[in-house]
Amino acid sequence: MVVEPLYPEFSTNYNLLLTAFMKRPVGIYPDDIGVVYRNPTSGRYFRLTWREWYRRTGRLSNALTGLLAIHPGKSHQPGDRVGTMALNHHRHLELYYAVTGCGAVLHPINIRLSLDHIVHTINHSQDKILFVDDVFWPLLESIYDRIKNTVEKFVYMSDQPGFPESRIEPVYEYESLLQGQSAEMDWPNLHEDTYATLCFTTGTTGLPKGVMFTHRQLYLQTLHIIVGDSFASDPSSLHLGEAEVPILITPMYHMHGWFFPFISVFSANKIVLPGAFTVEGFCELVETEKVTSAAVVPTILAMIIEYQNLHKYDLSSLKTLGVGGGALPLGLKMKAEKIIPGFNATSGYGSTESGRALRAFVKKTALNWPEKKLNEIQVKTGLPVPGVELRIVDEKGNPIPRDNETLGEILIRSPWVMGQYFNESEKTAEVWRDAWLHTGDVAKVDQEGYVTIADRKSDMIRSGAEMVPAILLENLTTTAEFILEAAYVGIPDEKWGQRPMAIVSLVPGAKENEKDILNYLKTEGVEKGKITNWMLPDYILISSQIPKTSVGKYDKVTIKKQLPELLSRAKKTN
Amino acid sequence: MVVEPLYPEFSTNYNLLLTAFMKRPVGIYPDDIGVVYRNPTSGRYFRLTWREWYRRTGRLSNALTGLLAIHPGKSHQPGDRVGTMALNHHRHLELYYAVTGCGAVLHPINIRLSLDHIVHTINHSQDKILFVDDVFWPLLESIYDRIKNTVEKFVYMSDQPGFPESRIEPVYEYESLLQGQSAEMDWPNLHEDTYATLCFTTGTTGLPKGVMFTHRQLYLQTLHIIVGDSFASDPSSLHLGEAEVPILITPMYHMHGWFFPFISVFSANKIVLPGAFTVEGFCELVETEKVTSAAVVPTILAMIIEYQNLHKYDLSSLKTLGVGGGALPLGLKMKAEKIIPGFNATSGYGSTESGRALRAFVKKTALNWPEKKLNEIQVKTGLPVPGVELRIVDEKGNPIPRDNETLGEILIRSPWVMGQYFNESEKTAEVWRDAWLHTGDVAKVDQEGYVTIADRKSDMIRSGAEMVPAILLENLTTTAEFILEAAYVGIPDEKWGQRPMAIVSLVPGAKENEKDILNYLKTEGVEKGKITNWMLPDYILISSQIPKTSVGKYDKVTIKKQLPELLSRAKKTN
Repeated sequence: MVVEPLYPEFSTNYNLLLTAFMKRPVGIYPDDIGVVYRNPTSGRYFRLTWREWYRRTGRLSNALTGLLAIHPGKSHQPGDRVGTMALNHHRHLELYYAVTGCGAVLHPINIRLSLDHIVHTINHSQDKILFVDDVFWPLLESIYDRIKNTVEKFVYMSDQPGFPESRIEPVYEYESLLQGQSAEMDWPNLHEDTYATLCFTTGTTGLPKGVMFTHRQLYLQTLHIIVGDSFASDPSSLHLGEAEVPILITPMYHMHGWFFPFISVFSANKIVLPGAFTVEGFCELVETEKVTSAAVVPTILAMIIEYQNLHKYDLSSLKTLGVGGGALPLGLKMKAEKIIPGFNATSGYGSTESGRALRAFVKKTALNWPEKKLNEIQVKTGLPVPGVELRIVDEKGNPIPRDNETLGEILIRSPWVMGQYFNESEKTAEVWRDAWLHTGDVAKVDQEGYVTIADRKSDMIRSGAEMVPAILLENLTTTAEFILEAAYVGIPDEKWGQRPMAIVSLVPGAKENEKDILNYLKTEGVEKGKITNWMLPDYILISSQIPKTSVGKYDKVTIKKQLPELLSRAKKTN
Repeated sequence: MVVEPLYPEFSTNYNLLLTAFMKRPVGIYPDDIGVVYRNPTSGRYFRLTWREWYRRTGRLSNALTGLLAIHPGKSHQPGDRVGTMALNHHRHLELYYAVTGCGAVLHPINIRLSLDHIVHTINHSQDKILFVDDVFWPLLESIYDRIKNTVEKFVYMSDQPGFPESRIEPVYEYESLLQGQSAEMDWPNLHEDTYATLCFTTGTTGLPKGVMFTHRQLYLQTLHIIVGDSFASDPSSLHLGEAEVPILITPMYHMHGWFFPFISVFSANKIVLPGAFTVEGFCELVETEKVTSAAVVPTILAMIIEYQNLHKYDLSSLKTLGVGGGALPLGLKMKAEKIIPGFNATSGYGSTESGRALRAFVKKTALNWPEKKLNEIQVKTGLPVPGVELRIVDEKGNPIPRDNETLGEILIRSPWVMGQYFNESEKTAEVWRDAWLHTGDVAKVDQEGYVTIADRKSDMIRSGAEMVPAILLENLTTTAEFILEAAYVGIPDEKWGQRPMAIVSLVPGAKENEKDILNYLKTEGVEKGKITNWMLPDYILISSQIPKTSVGKYDKVTIKKQLPELLSRAKKTN
């Protein structure tokens, strides 16, 4: 009775493609500055109008399909993989759209991984071409022999003209490549289920795993993030109206730079790219570009507020700072708000597999709550992003009660969680069970529905029959004025199985010792009922540095490896 | 090489379904008031928490699939059609989700159509069940014989208990129907290409045509509207943060009530439903519910600002008023802003087929423009909603220049434009040509990209070789302080083909005559270069009423039918 529509690909099944995002700013603001990049070494600025950036992206995509002979994918079949070893700059943003727009798969290589892991991700992905920053050329040289049978072509990217002397071949130079191409790209109407990106987990528990996303998934995640942020009515909302000026600090090789390369292009924001993060570069760019928004990991936030010359910059344009990639310690939040006026930070939660899943916005019914209570909400991990189905279940698979105490594993599904790991069907089957993605993260829920991530399942300290989330102790410890950071691990104990050890770094100039830390935990923790006596650490180590992963989280794997040495320097508390 | 993901229906092909919208408010705000309905006749209020409303919707959906034996559809195959003859109330909102959520197709019947057309839409849709308000029961009685072979069951909806005496059968009573059902509905995981709604055009040029939308299309339109409104950084943005309180004035049988039934549920707004629009009811609800936002047609706006008791109400909560369904005359906008403080109105454009396509937001580069220039932007029809592909082409199919003068037809495609008319393949082929939906609307574009709808192709006045958009004259005429509304039509002329006639209604108490109107058009129009001399109307009729369609637009078809009579009362101007 009902016939197929005449042009389903432009009506009922209109393909959701990333190219739509970049057509918007070039359509509305062709001659306004769209992309600003500051080279962190030379301090030199690059400013591109949307038209200029769009035309460069078109040239690049033509080069990929023509000269470099990239083969596009089809629905559910990945096209050729194109790897990038690159910082946050306009060229990387061009690659985001040029590679995916012609049907190939972008693999932003995490250059903070170990060399072994970098080699693994390139070979496992079978990257056909690598685009490499000048600063990463020595890194490339050092792994060349182990990837040269996989990678067919290399493209050198630099703000300076010319090539480096190198045995690597064949090498193309990015800017020359663009010059030979037409700026008009006939963007193909790909099927929306064509794979667009391949991102690797950081591999804290083994080899990094490749996570694939289709155009449709990335498009839908972008839309839902914007929608979720726009729903929130608290001033800390990261809602990016088009007049906002975000700085992209999260590396673009880490979880799609937390989606700013998609959100901000579609929003037609002026996008500020700092290359690599430095506190000086951040402060200068906020001042010169009137940056309004940023999203950082807690460690970066700690670096910013610790910076001695902070007061020399005009940071008054900065309105919102989102924090993710790790819990936001309440103490850190309060210190930051004291130091940067107008500053307002909130937390969130996501993973490579799940994308953004939670954000700690203030519910409309809580807008008038006292500040103390609001602070508590904002360091909770958050409420589900619109469109996310969330279940938190005990070991039998039953939903946990909303008592802010019982712990359970987070299960997720949504229009954008990954379908599978790249060429790892067994590992896919480990996380995709009973129609839910099992995150391996443990959390509790309060009566209002706010979720607090307790810890990774593997990061729980098991003392006797009890499980102590390391993060609970870490959050409490950093509320102390004199403490900058704190990591907890379990150390083997004959009687209890494990007992907690604290590794603590103090704020610059602080003179407190291990006993002061223990006293603080007793008066602020035990006496106020936040922890029980048996959760107090058996060992405390004051250290100027705490090992961290490539994305700034406490590196518990490395800490556990160094345990004997760390333990030897720590002080026993009883 | 790459295998299918394990649960594609929950990952790469996660179905975009309307049920997701209602799961959000019930998850976050279960015990807060979500839906408020005021009976416009009795003045009685109904207030439902989100949990109550959600459970009622579940009961209704169980009743539909069980007792009433509705058959769900599949991908691209429509399920049974369920018609509604209903005002804007909580029951209608329940039907929106209960019918679509179980896989059936909702047909909100436009009860303002002629009886012949109402009968046509019911029979053409093959509505299996009708849900009918008590106030529309006499209407149903009057068409019963012509639809009883199509419709199998009737459901009577009323705020009062009991049934009317009636020969119609079988009749169920809405509230009783719910009581017999479980509140737990096992919402099926439908394919997202399942049809959800069937809406009819108003049929100004023939029989109304049925326009079908899938879950996916409605879901994506909702997301893109929210995203578009959240991008805009001007204060007139209709951006609905969850703390906003919208009142749904646009009838829910007209273009999905301009998508508020979807947007506001997903946003978890407190939704205010006035039944039918009355100025008194509107003012009372704004005051009692602290309504912040509304969207109206220009005629309703004129009714509001004309209302004598307006000053007796506290309307200070009202921040934003969107205007659509017809161009917003600059004069009307300025009058409204003078009368309601804080009031800020903008225009938009869309049709049943295209959904929302344009909105007149202020670009970020124009935020500091002088007020006069901003006003001009805000009565232009607007810029494309994000995700909308727009082409405006001349008769040869070439894009028109951005000179704010040349006219062309608007072609559209987007993830939500209709795929086809229901069982009208020939009419579908008329509008879907060369992979674009041809809207039949004529527009011009300025240098900044702002589109201004000139008129329907069929509403142009053809004088000599020139085409005069009626709307140009209508907008100019209503800038006069003493004029409330103005409609222009072409009257047959031996020499010129057509010549313009104006039908004008004055503001209450105004004493101006036809000569004053002509003088105003000469001094404000011709002398200021807005129109040329030959565009001045040959005839002017001052009339207390101008015929309008069911959605409040000037009814040019009726006006043209009454032309001899109208012409006999009009005054010749030269």
